[in-house]
Amino acid sequence: MGVDLKDLLDELRKELRPTDEEVARGLETYEFLKDLIHSKLRLDVDFKVSLEGSFAKGTALKGDLDLDVFILIDKEDLSKEWIEENVIRRLYPDLKKYEAHIKYAAHPYITLRVNNIDVDVVPAYWAKTPAEAKTAVDRTPFHTRFVNSRLTSELRDEVRLLKKFFKGIGVYGAEIKVEGFSGYLTELLTIKYGDFLSVLKAMTQWVEGQVVVVEGTHNVEILRKLFLNAPLIVPDPVDPYRNVASAVSRRSLTIAVLASHRFLEKPSKIFFKPPRMKLSVDRINDILNGTNREVMCLIYEFKPDLSPDIMWGELKKISRKLLNALKMNNFNIIDVGLWSDEKSHAVITFDVDLSSVRQAYVVRVGPSKLCNGSINFLSKYVSRESTKALWISYDGVIKALTRKRYTDPKDFLMSLDKERYLESKDLRLVMISKDLNEVLNALSFREDFIEWVSVFVVKTPAWMMLNTNPPP
Amino acid sequence: MGVDLKDLLDELRKELRPTDEEVARGLETYEFLKDLIHSKLRLDVDFKVSLEGSFAKGTALKGDLDLDVFILIDKEDLSKEWIEENVIRRLYPDLKKYEAHIKYAAHPYITLRVNNIDVDVVPAYWAKTPAEAKTAVDRTPFHTRFVNSRLTSELRDEVRLLKKFFKGIGVYGAEIKVEGFSGYLTELLTIKYGDFLSVLKAMTQWVEGQVVVVEGTHNVEILRKLFLNAPLIVPDPVDPYRNVASAVSRRSLTIAVLASHRFLEKPSKIFFKPPRMKLSVDRINDILNGTNREVMCLIYEFKPDLSPDIMWGELKKISRKLLNALKMNNFNIIDVGLWSDEKSHAVITFDVDLSSVRQAYVVRVGPSKLCNGSINFLSKYVSRESTKALWISYDGVIKALTRKRYTDPKDFLMSLDKERYLESKDLRLVMISKDLNEVLNALSFREDFIEWVSVFVVKTPAWMMLNTNPPP
Repeated sequence: MGVDLKDLLDELRKELRPTDEEVARGLETYEFLKDLIHSKLRLDVDFKVSLEGSFAKGTALKGDLDLDVFILIDKEDLSKEWIEENVIRRLYPDLKKYEAHIKYAAHPYITLRVNNIDVDVVPAYWAKTPAEAKTAVDRTPFHTRFVNSRLTSELRDEVRLLKKFFKGIGVYGAEIKVEGFSGYLTELLTIKYGDFLSVLKAMTQWVEGQVVVVEGTHNVEILRKLFLNAPLIVPDPVDPYRNVASAVSRRSLTIAVLASHRFLEKPSKIFFKPPRMKLSVDRINDILNGTNREVMCLIYEFKPDLSPDIMWGELKKISRKLLNALKMNNFNIIDVGLWSDEKSHAVITFDVDLSSVRQAYVVRVGPSKLCNGSINFLSKYVSRESTKALWISYDGVIKALTRKRYTDPKDFLMSLDKERYLESKDLRLVMISKDLNEVLNALSFREDFIEWVSVFVVKTPAWMMLNTNPPP
Repeated sequence: MGVDLKDLLDELRKELRPTDEEVARGLETYEFLKDLIHSKLRLDVDFKVSLEGSFAKGTALKGDLDLDVFILIDKEDLSKEWIEENVIRRLYPDLKKYEAHIKYAAHPYITLRVNNIDVDVVPAYWAKTPAEAKTAVDRTPFHTRFVNSRLTSELRDEVRLLKKFFKGIGVYGAEIKVEGFSGYLTELLTIKYGDFLSVLKAMTQWVEGQVVVVEGTHNVEILRKLFLNAPLIVPDPVDPYRNVASAVSRRSLTIAVLASHRFLEKPSKIFFKPPRMKLSVDRINDILNGTNREVMCLIYEFKPDLSPDIMWGELKKISRKLLNALKMNNFNIIDVGLWSDEKSHAVITFDVDLSSVRQAYVVRVGPSKLCNGSINFLSKYVSRESTKALWISYDGVIKALTRKRYTDPKDFLMSLDKERYLESKDLRLVMISKDLNEVLNALSFREDFIEWVSVFVVKTPAWMMLNTNPPP
């Protein structure tokens, strides 16, 4: 690559900054909505309209403009019903023409599209201090205030670089689909380390359970106990008992750390703008055959009004259950992937090592140290028809050589109880298939699935810049 | 099976008791040697001749008679040289005609064959208390005395049953070859639990790190710290800082516990007298092919005067090193076996899962939690020609799909440094072969190796009484 790091980042800073036109349009839109809300809303409690989110913090990416318009209501016992009756129903008729949809998170809120801008109109409790906040959205105004009190226009460029980097490597966003870095977390990291490159340098030193204290002092041991098992711990400067990084999974953390390391070694635009890759089914099958693997797909259907977070949550839960069941039955699963259009279909893909599939016999291993479980293991296998040998191995561990009941992972999955293992409350299994053409057919040859499965099969992310394996 | 347990044990008790003739011959032989030693030995320090070991304790098995004749010498600074000059050289001329051999353990000693009885003549320091003992043999007279002070003739029958049981399941003897239960340990367990069946019942409750206190009270926590990592801890009643069970490996312990459980479930003579099994090479190959395995043999040669304990020690060390190397290279090794005639040849056998051999690609897995090792893993595999994919898996662990350099474990072993991995000070590698006929040829078709390898391939011990797998 050998691009000049400074030039690369300078160019990106310019590219990522929203245009004056965008900013003006955003502000106009906000003023318009603020006036509209003030003219329509009549509440018997105090309220104010305020602009929150990345636009309010000046950290939005060019072309990625969306507005968070909050209605902060001075009523401690805000209920879903009260908001629906007094806020949503009052505003909805006048907002209808802006593609308004009513959605539900902690509270009901309205999504709009005004002047080509996506807008969320979010009613929240008007907390006077962060400690008074009842829900995550109630805390948002304090985050906006904190970030604005710390950011300069130079720092805002650095936030945008970091956001774009996280997006490029696929770890931006706290939603269940991504389990990555939220906008607020990205801003805090920039505030903490001062600029984009310093954040990346710091990240290369991170380990699992990393604690990052943005300001002031904290007892790291207490934080680790408070946020047990969190891969990354960043106490919220406005509420230290909250972990801003609680959504960050081990996977997102590891990707961020390794990509940071790789970027500092080989700076490239690839990290910010990964090339798209779409392989033909024949090419995908060639790669799989060439490395002795197969991809087993489980296709699911769900109702269009299912919230993405719930859908991804159920999909993850099913995939974990099935992965454990497959492993217990000695199928070597190289990787698991989840895809969804977030509208009607979702897919779980298992990347299966074929040599484990072709294995007819399997050695099952008892407890590594002698315990009651060792006797239970003996009792379990001594009477099984499938046990071909049962002995105490060189290492003192009881082992059983058994004939596998299923040599095909698909047959094995089909043998499982559908309700208990294969489906969930909102997800219906449509098919299990190892034939990609069949899968694509069932998904009406959706382009984005083909792209996604290409990446899943190639496995190596472009930013890895594997010496011998350039992206096809 | 359904044999009557009481009848079975009664019959065995009778069978195992030495005959009056044997006992008389043993005592005569001892008296003869005692007189001979007294008439020949002229030392400037005090000494006495005493009978030790299982014959002295009345716990020898019928037909297994051998005598331990100790020369206890009242000289604290007993050296190898002093013993050789003053004891061995003085006695040797008169003992020569009894197939005398001079051997070396803690001290030099003489082995004889007199009246069809194997005799060890063992010079030792005449300690007045166990604490004064310098070596294990110095402690022996105290063991003899302790055991005789506790055993009745009924208990001696129980000791013999337990010894025969341990022999039958292959865990009798503290030598490195077996790493099992010594005669003294067998006696202590009988003293502790009162009879054979009670020992077996107690053993079924044992777990790794089990502490058995024969008499008095001990602090279990302190014992566990003192004998860290010992699978079984039995403080010596005559010297509580010594673990009588220190030789017992996890394997011997597990075999003893599981066989006890199985015996109580299905009492049978098989435990005491395992049927011999000798399969043809064709039959062995059928079993291996039928379960997708192969046996890779490493044949070693050594000099005839090499002490068995040293030979077995070196053989174990080589096998452990090679096992780790094979595992690191993703060969799935089901089991490891060691055989030797203790005269000139030794063999290490690896029971190899063929599906792992036929695997051309292998997934290497980085640290399970993000740490510096994760970055090192990336750096290591990102530049390797054999890396086909490098990615962060669903579980957040960095993984590499790599082409295996060796798909044949024999090729892999041959690529290793001979001196560092394949050989040791006293063991010379003769050949590596996966062809049993070739191996048998190299070992001059030794019957005992064929029997041993039959057991190694069948794996299930006869006492397991696997429902579906009767011994062929």
